[in-house]
Amino acid sequence: MAAGQPALLRVLTGERLDPPPIWIMRQAGRYLPEYRELRKRAKSFLDFCYSPALATEAVLQPLRRFPLDAAILFSDILVVPDALGRKVWFVEGEGPRLEPLIVEAAWRFDDSERALQRLAPVYEAVERIKGALPAGTPLIGFCGAPWTVATYMLQGEGGEKDRARRAAYERPADVDRLLEVLADISALHLNEQVKAGADCLQIFESWAEGLSPALFERLVIKPTRRLVERLRALGCAVPVIGFPRGAGAQTETYALQTGVTALGVDTQTPASFLRGGQTSAAMALQGNLDPQLLVVGGEALEKGVRDVVESFRNAPHIFNLGHGITPEATPENVARLVALVKGHA
Amino acid sequence: MAAGQPALLRVLTGERLDPPPIWIMRQAGRYLPEYRELRKRAKSFLDFCYSPALATEAVLQPLRRFPLDAAILFSDILVVPDALGRKVWFVEGEGPRLEPLIVEAAWRFDDSERALQRLAPVYEAVERIKGALPAGTPLIGFCGAPWTVATYMLQGEGGEKDRARRAAYERPADVDRLLEVLADISALHLNEQVKAGADCLQIFESWAEGLSPALFERLVIKPTRRLVERLRALGCAVPVIGFPRGAGAQTETYALQTGVTALGVDTQTPASFLRGGQTSAAMALQGNLDPQLLVVGGEALEKGVRDVVESFRNAPHIFNLGHGITPEATPENVARLVALVKGHA
Repeated sequence: MAAGQPALLRVLTGERLDPPPIWIMRQAGRYLPEYRELRKRAKSFLDFCYSPALATEAVLQPLRRFPLDAAILFSDILVVPDALGRKVWFVEGEGPRLEPLIVEAAWRFDDSERALQRLAPVYEAVERIKGALPAGTPLIGFCGAPWTVATYMLQGEGGEKDRARRAAYERPADVDRLLEVLADISALHLNEQVKAGADCLQIFESWAEGLSPALFERLVIKPTRRLVERLRALGCAVPVIGFPRGAGAQTETYALQTGVTALGVDTQTPASFLRGGQTSAAMALQGNLDPQLLVVGGEALEKGVRDVVESFRNAPHIFNLGHGITPEATPENVARLVALVKGHA
Repeated sequence: MAAGQPALLRVLTGERLDPPPIWIMRQAGRYLPEYRELRKRAKSFLDFCYSPALATEAVLQPLRRFPLDAAILFSDILVVPDALGRKVWFVEGEGPRLEPLIVEAAWRFDDSERALQRLAPVYEAVERIKGALPAGTPLIGFCGAPWTVATYMLQGEGGEKDRARRAAYERPADVDRLLEVLADISALHLNEQVKAGADCLQIFESWAEGLSPALFERLVIKPTRRLVERLRALGCAVPVIGFPRGAGAQTETYALQTGVTALGVDTQTPASFLRGGQTSAAMALQGNLDPQLLVVGGEALEKGVRDVVESFRNAPHIFNLGHGITPEATPENVARLVALVKGHA
């Protein structure tokens, strides 16, 4: 990739840059007063996600405040089950609720064309965002990983995933089929985002934790590999960042076996763990500042930033948090973080 | 150790046994109808823990049903803050609540003598249990690790540990001092249990997850090492199992740097991760069946047991779950598990 390319894309193709490019998971979100104001303009959170105008404005908000190196589509991982016909809603202050999967017949979702139609406003948002972004700011598209999306569908809500895990044991054929359906529709969903203008992609595996090695292989590795393979088969060649939060000792296995281009590293996983092992030295690593440091600020934030920059120094590195920014973070601390990473503070 | 010793203690000193000894975290607990009946005889959960008669009966209940290779003291990790004068109570169906630490003065707990007095019923329970156990059944004493206990003290409850982690950043000297106090009192507490008859010990680090590498070193490794060193300095020589649940890629660091004798492995951490690295081949590993399999049963349970036995085959192994048994588990599935491990099924 030419040196004229945006920093994020250069790092994703294996280049090491100093300072590293930076973006922040959930950078458009509740920690910004202007986002909280904007949010009032849609009745439900899903309505907000499906409004290209509101989604575009949400994406642009953090970029007006901070010199971030990438934008990320404003959407939600649960638009996929919604598009597949599962009832999805959000309880204020609690999180998502889904009509859980109970009936055998409910497992069949094979109308991907209708699903993509329902998702059309997302692709329209991507086009609008791309048109509104400053030249040189790449746009990241995304989806939830099949298992993460399935946990919500099986459990009916966030939090503990016991029911979802039990379903994986009790109804293996059904759950495996659900994961295949989700992998396939997610590949189509990501491909449409790229066709609409996304420059690279991230797969959020937010619930990689707590799985036995056998389940990790079956529920995380295999469906993610299928998703990436399908995406490539559709002709989509952009870099894909995989973020298996909570994968722990399995993080390297994920990096090696799923086919993702780059690896999102969560807060607790040391960069040295990945660099000491078999992961390609050219694989870009993204992460992994503790999001609580954007609440705390001060010297702790400064030390945390130094630790992260230092620990990833020998890798192609994209600076990010190790988990999404929290609503309690302050814009002042985010500004300070970006300045610290860029060496202007 | 002589071959006449109980299997658990032989494995803890590095011997490989086939079949491996088995015990179950929270084996005395709510999945047993007789426990739920017994529980009614104390007004509060802490009253139950502080009743030597009730605690003894609770310990014996699972042993009457299943040929387990060890008993574990019935108590709670929060007796330590209780003994230190923090108000602790349990909300039915929700979990523990603690008067959170807010005032500077509240951080000072230096009256370890009074704390041990308050804990005297625990040691009386250990004596009674030891007297009531069948010969050859070793008794495991335990405590919570300093950070895990501190999270409850700082957060005021279980669940998310954000406030506790923020306190660690915002008031480093206070939190470090709290961890030292907890390490020291926990060493005394464990030592008293051994003096009363416990044959080995387990340190439960239930909240090792989500910590940055720097915090993991500061909040988990250092205080645990201090606890183990203090314990040894008190003349206590019995084996100590450390169980850092959720430590992920840091599990090996924990095994190597804390001074524990043996390592409890959580559900998601593959045995191969520990055996492939620098961990001593003689270090006993304990774990790590998914507790949900004791709810699910059937073929999934059989396969899960085979996977665990197989994956730990080359190590001194203590069969256990990768997390505590859940109230939804059935006694029938536990019986089946024990029979499977012992090769009688």
